[in-house]
Amino acid sequence: MSNEYPEIQGAVCPLPLSHDQAIVLGHGSGGKLMHDLISRHFLPHFSNSILDAGNDAGRVEINPLSSTSVKLAVSTDSHVVSPLFFPGGDIGRLAICGTVNDVAMLGAEPLYLTAGFILEEGLSIHTLERVLQSMETAAAEAGVQIVAGDTKVVQKGKADGLYINTAGFGLVRPGWQIGGEAARQGDVILISGSIGDHGLAVLEARGELGFSSGITSDVAPLNHLIAELLQAGCEVHVLRDPTRGGVATTLNEIAQQSGVLLQINENQLPINPAVAAACEMLGFDPLYVANEGKILVIVAAKDAGKALKLMQQNPYGQNAAIIGEVLASPGGRVLMKTVIGTTRVVDVLSGELLPRIC
Amino acid sequence: MSNEYPEIQGAVCPLPLSHDQAIVLGHGSGGKLMHDLISRHFLPHFSNSILDAGNDAGRVEINPLSSTSVKLAVSTDSHVVSPLFFPGGDIGRLAICGTVNDVAMLGAEPLYLTAGFILEEGLSIHTLERVLQSMETAAAEAGVQIVAGDTKVVQKGKADGLYINTAGFGLVRPGWQIGGEAARQGDVILISGSIGDHGLAVLEARGELGFSSGITSDVAPLNHLIAELLQAGCEVHVLRDPTRGGVATTLNEIAQQSGVLLQINENQLPINPAVAAACEMLGFDPLYVANEGKILVIVAAKDAGKALKLMQQNPYGQNAAIIGEVLASPGGRVLMKTVIGTTRVVDVLSGELLPRIC
Repeated sequence: MSNEYPEIQGAVCPLPLSHDQAIVLGHGSGGKLMHDLISRHFLPHFSNSILDAGNDAGRVEINPLSSTSVKLAVSTDSHVVSPLFFPGGDIGRLAICGTVNDVAMLGAEPLYLTAGFILEEGLSIHTLERVLQSMETAAAEAGVQIVAGDTKVVQKGKADGLYINTAGFGLVRPGWQIGGEAARQGDVILISGSIGDHGLAVLEARGELGFSSGITSDVAPLNHLIAELLQAGCEVHVLRDPTRGGVATTLNEIAQQSGVLLQINENQLPINPAVAAACEMLGFDPLYVANEGKILVIVAAKDAGKALKLMQQNPYGQNAAIIGEVLASPGGRVLMKTVIGTTRVVDVLSGELLPRIC
Repeated sequence: MSNEYPEIQGAVCPLPLSHDQAIVLGHGSGGKLMHDLISRHFLPHFSNSILDAGNDAGRVEINPLSSTSVKLAVSTDSHVVSPLFFPGGDIGRLAICGTVNDVAMLGAEPLYLTAGFILEEGLSIHTLERVLQSMETAAAEAGVQIVAGDTKVVQKGKADGLYINTAGFGLVRPGWQIGGEAARQGDVILISGSIGDHGLAVLEARGELGFSSGITSDVAPLNHLIAELLQAGCEVHVLRDPTRGGVATTLNEIAQQSGVLLQINENQLPINPAVAAACEMLGFDPLYVANEGKILVIVAAKDAGKALKLMQQNPYGQNAAIIGEVLASPGGRVLMKTVIGTTRVVDVLSGELLPRIC
């Protein structure tokens, strides 16, 4: 394979290039460009029934044909947020919560995490210590252990302080089959609280708001909130956290996986007034702004009231709300009834809204 | 926590700084600086019995008290090798084999991997495709599936083409208790082939050899070779791949974990003549150069001959050799009988030999 070696000269192309030839920031947005990159380039090489299911975590079975069979949910996330610290959180808390939440979204109880660090030469040990302390606190809150780690160092100018990958797995609760493909006509859509806080908190930390908004990130581990819903016997069909690409993109993913129409009501969407004001000024639609401590829950209609009440009793669900319902057709679409009474199509994010938000 | 936000200005300190204040390249070397960083900063935050065991992978038990109890080995590795392609391999093959091997080192059968990508804006899609193809090939060879993935994009100048994290887990074979702590007096030390090839192949790809050596990286999945040893009933006590820090550092880790003296014989160490010549020219000791497709095996003396024969029959073990033995004291040390008949202490790598080798 030594004939592959001369290629290294051209690993990174001069900019600008089209997104067909080279990676652009939009490929990391969570939106259409990212989905295209994954479906055209990643899935053809890695395709299998677990990965192709397209959920936040992969569902695997250990010892499938034996009496010791167990089902696990497995997930991974690399964190490259800039800056490392922002109002309400930091890259360490984000790294723990991101993977805890992705594992929990399949109805699993997160148990064990791995942590891989890419450190930039010159990173202050004091900064590293603060990030590690934050990870310790978040892991304790979520009730997970870090059982394997790795540390790499790259030259100054080859990273941005530090990047953290976390992977993790948890035990899928027996009897539950939760996933983006399980939404059914008649189900009710809930969200655990206000939308857009994380994205705007990071933007403020970058100094790009131009004013002090008081907005803080919502980054939080949601596994306990989810456990409460499941232990109470709510008939939960879908759980998903609307991170990159926001609520709009996440709802579209679910609509496509389940082949249903999701209809939400603009006047039911919980939005922090400061977030609404900042979005208006910046020309952002909060439906597309990232969240890191919110969850979309789709439940059988009979349990919607119970689920809402349970969520509102949890510290991370106080502003939970019912925001819409699942209809049959046209499948694969998301519609929103606006405050002025019209209905509009809510599409996936097509380009790039805010890079390096998580 | 919004008072943490002003800190972001000083995340990366101006160089040069001491390794107590800031990250230096040596912190990623696999040697003493890295061990100090981990024991002083990482372990105090993440300490638990699984992580503290200090093996290549963490050994966890799912459903420990139930009849469906299973033991898993879990590992993670971020890959930042520069350049992305080198004689005999590339970052993709390295990312698959690195985690497959770490999981296999606990006597587990690797099953599932996750893959997290950090892509630099401007990375050529063609380069990405070649890396993904290489990962597909290596995963097929190892017999593992990628069940979760993540893609992040950072601005041009905030990475170096692409970085890949892989995490993975596998089922620990029942009845086996393999780990760095299990070496016993009287055991025999084997290595699966020649040492130093990977490190020098990467160096050649960087143009730092100054000549064409014909050396190729040994990067390979070793899980099948290990399975052959275990299925044949060889009484294996320790398996470890001598990656960063090389054979010398890895043997020291084992000596310390097991509290034994490891004694190796210089004239038994398999070294490719081109590697020996290049090391001589560059002033490197091949004992400290990274390998990515080699394994140190410590077995009960009764099975040493059988293990050697089995390894030599595997394509990745053709040059396997017995290189030493386990003695009682002084514990925690590694000694080498040199070709000229003297005995010298083999210490851990103290500084930094070659950055970004894996």
